[in-house]
Amino acid sequence: MKAVASAITAASFVDITHDVRPHDVLEGAFILWSVAPHFPEGSVHCAVVDPGVGTKRRGLIISSGGQLFVGPDNGLLAPAARAVGEPSAYEIINPRYFRAAVSTTFHGRDVFAPVAAHLAAGVPPEEIGRPTSEWAVPELDFEGGKLQEAEGVLAGEIIYIDRFGNAVTNIRSELLLDRVDFDRELTLEAQVIRPVRLRISYGYGEQGELCVIAGSHGLIEISVREGSAEEELGLKVGQRIRLHLQGP
Amino acid sequence: MKAVASAITAASFVDITHDVRPHDVLEGAFILWSVAPHFPEGSVHCAVVDPGVGTKRRGLIISSGGQLFVGPDNGLLAPAARAVGEPSAYEIINPRYFRAAVSTTFHGRDVFAPVAAHLAAGVPPEEIGRPTSEWAVPELDFEGGKLQEAEGVLAGEIIYIDRFGNAVTNIRSELLLDRVDFDRELTLEAQVIRPVRLRISYGYGEQGELCVIAGSHGLIEISVREGSAEEELGLKVGQRIRLHLQGP
Amino acid sequence: MKAVASAITAASFVDITHDVRPHDVLEGAFILWSVAPHFPEGSVHCAVVDPGVGTKRRGLIISSGGQLFVGPDNGLLAPAARAVGEPSAYEIINPRYFRAAVSTTFHGRDVFAPVAAHLAAGVPPEEIGRPTSEWAVPELDFEGGKLQEAEGVLAGEIIYIDRFGNAVTNIRSELLLDRVDFDRELTLEAQVIRPVRLRISYGYGEQGELCVIAGSHGLIEISVREGSAEEELGLKVGQRIRLHLQGP
Repeated sequence: MKAVASAITAASFVDITHDVRPHDVLEGAFILWSVAPHFPEGSVHCAVVDPGVGTKRRGLIISSGGQLFVGPDNGLLAPAARAVGEPSAYEIINPRYFRAAVSTTFHGRDVFAPVAAHLAAGVPPEEIGRPTSEWAVPELDFEGGKLQEAEGVLAGEIIYIDRFGNAVTNIRSELLLDRVDFDRELTLEAQVIRPVRLRISYGYGEQGELCVIAGSHGLIEISVREGSAEEELGLKVGQRIRLHLQGP
Repeated sequence: MKAVASAITAASFVDITHDVRPHDVLEGAFILWSVAPHFPEGSVHCAVVDPGVGTKRRGLIISSGGQLFVGPDNGLLAPAARAVGEPSAYEIINPRYFRAAVSTTFHGRDVFAPVAAHLAAGVPPEEIGRPTSEWAVPELDFEGGKLQEAEGVLAGEIIYIDRFGNAVTNIRSELLLDRVDFDRELTLEAQVIRPVRLRISYGYGEQGELCVIAGSHGLIEISVREGSAEEELGLKVGQRIRLHLQGP
Repeated sequence: MKAVASAITAASFVDITHDVRPHDVLEGAFILWSVAPHFPEGSVHCAVVDPGVGTKRRGLIISSGGQLFVGPDNGLLAPAARAVGEPSAYEIINPRYFRAAVSTTFHGRDVFAPVAAHLAAGVPPEEIGRPTSEWAVPELDFEGGKLQEAEGVLAGEIIYIDRFGNAVTNIRSELLLDRVDFDRELTLEAQVIRPVRLRISYGYGEQGELCVIAGSHGLIEISVREGSAEEELGLKVGQRIRLHLQGP
């Protein structure tokens, strides 16, 4: 992909990650959503997690907040594009901006990389695609965690587990911080685990202590300092979790 | 290596991979062969998979098709250099272009990176090496799969298994596409596995279905959509495979 | 981190590694120490292995030998800064050079990356921090291995094990090379393993042979050609080792 792009544009490349689990569109969408707001205007993001390659799934350019997103129409781009502004989407249709021979198995190299490179070189999105108003969004909402006032419960889902074993939920940190002080103990109840007590912490807790933190994504994370919450609690992406605000 | 090179040239670096299995020259050669044709003229490739470091194995510069290849003379560079043009090779001999102190264990940093950086900065290959007509090539031929007409069999070897578990053969896709339609079922017979039926597919097959695809390298791949053909069939690099074209 | 930095400076990024084991400050310190001397003057190193994030641990800028080092004050930067010159350290205090919102969990993105980018863009260290004379250093000394003359023993510790399974000691290669010829056999005695004989080798030994080499870091390494010394001997970082110079 970089080879193809470097023949089209002198723009510099910034690698975000090559370690998304194979075919895990949701993990890719989360990572793109988490980094895009930090990039300057004019950035072009080329993202490829593409289990549908070779089928009729469409390719997209999404313009939003002065940034451009290029990739398959499978939900990968949508959360990031929404996070940085008001998205306008284009279905990629103009083969003039593709590699001469397009394989059925690697559109990253043959379609998305050359399209992104042409965009970086100044070709407008309208020249490469046609406007479209329908595009895929992931089922999990990255900020969809809710306060259930009557029960005193914050309810959400685990949307990402990082390489340290911290489990990121889709509950915005303010929902917790507006309701309770730090240094309290709460009860966490997850779909498949026993209830456990954990301490709220501004940073990470004491070594080995299970705690809830206001993480760097602006979301609540379940974490063990210098340990793995994933392993200790058997956490998985997609699990529903409930945080009881009254504590024990 | 980048530190040393960045003190010599302002050229930008494009990382291809740092994940070649230790000492696996063949895997490195395949990856270089698969990416080099996509790079623009003027590119300088520095490739190091070097189990022979510290022995008498020579270092090479190969010029081919407007690109330059730098690395050990162990077969790593040969397939890529042949794929992009008519190679001219030089044995690296001029220590003026090495790091001042050359270790016995890391010629990537001490010889190949500075040589590649000087080439990128405009030093001609003749200034650093002397012409040589003999250089190592890998035993496996990346395009050596053959049609055995009498038997109606495509015979080749597995030359690479990617991180998704797709097994790339050295049978060029045209050999299959010229003979049979897609959506047929064929029988695959591999060196160490039982015969299995697989469907030919332009893209990937149905979820979980074992199939043969015309892969992005221009070669036939054995693949399972959102699964691992490697695990399912116990495939390994170097295994001979035979595809019976008549189907069952 | 690169997103934030790329909005501040047009400097190019050189990735050293993203594979330091979680929370392993010593491994990060070793890698930084091993690469920094090869970078040109004017380089700005941003290094983050930061188990203490969110606690009161300070952030540092260290200026040394024309290079700048930015990261947490936990020993990560000290060996590299000492290796390239006479260090002057600054405690990072001026929030004007931080990201607007500083999280408690990701100072890499919110403090160190923007500070490093501003330094690369020409802001002087004194503008961002205040001079400090006390800063953390690792307990293991990367060049602390010693010759114990009376016993004829080189004594040190294993400070790093690379991905090939080579165990790097903190015994400088000269200490060995000044005393014995190559092609001798010595006895290695490690804290938890039985004594084994190994051959000294300028490069790597015969395939599968256990040997001591003068490694690319200028330090003695315990190595198996095309094999793993780590696995064969059960080696671990921190283990004390003793090399008996008289041999068997």
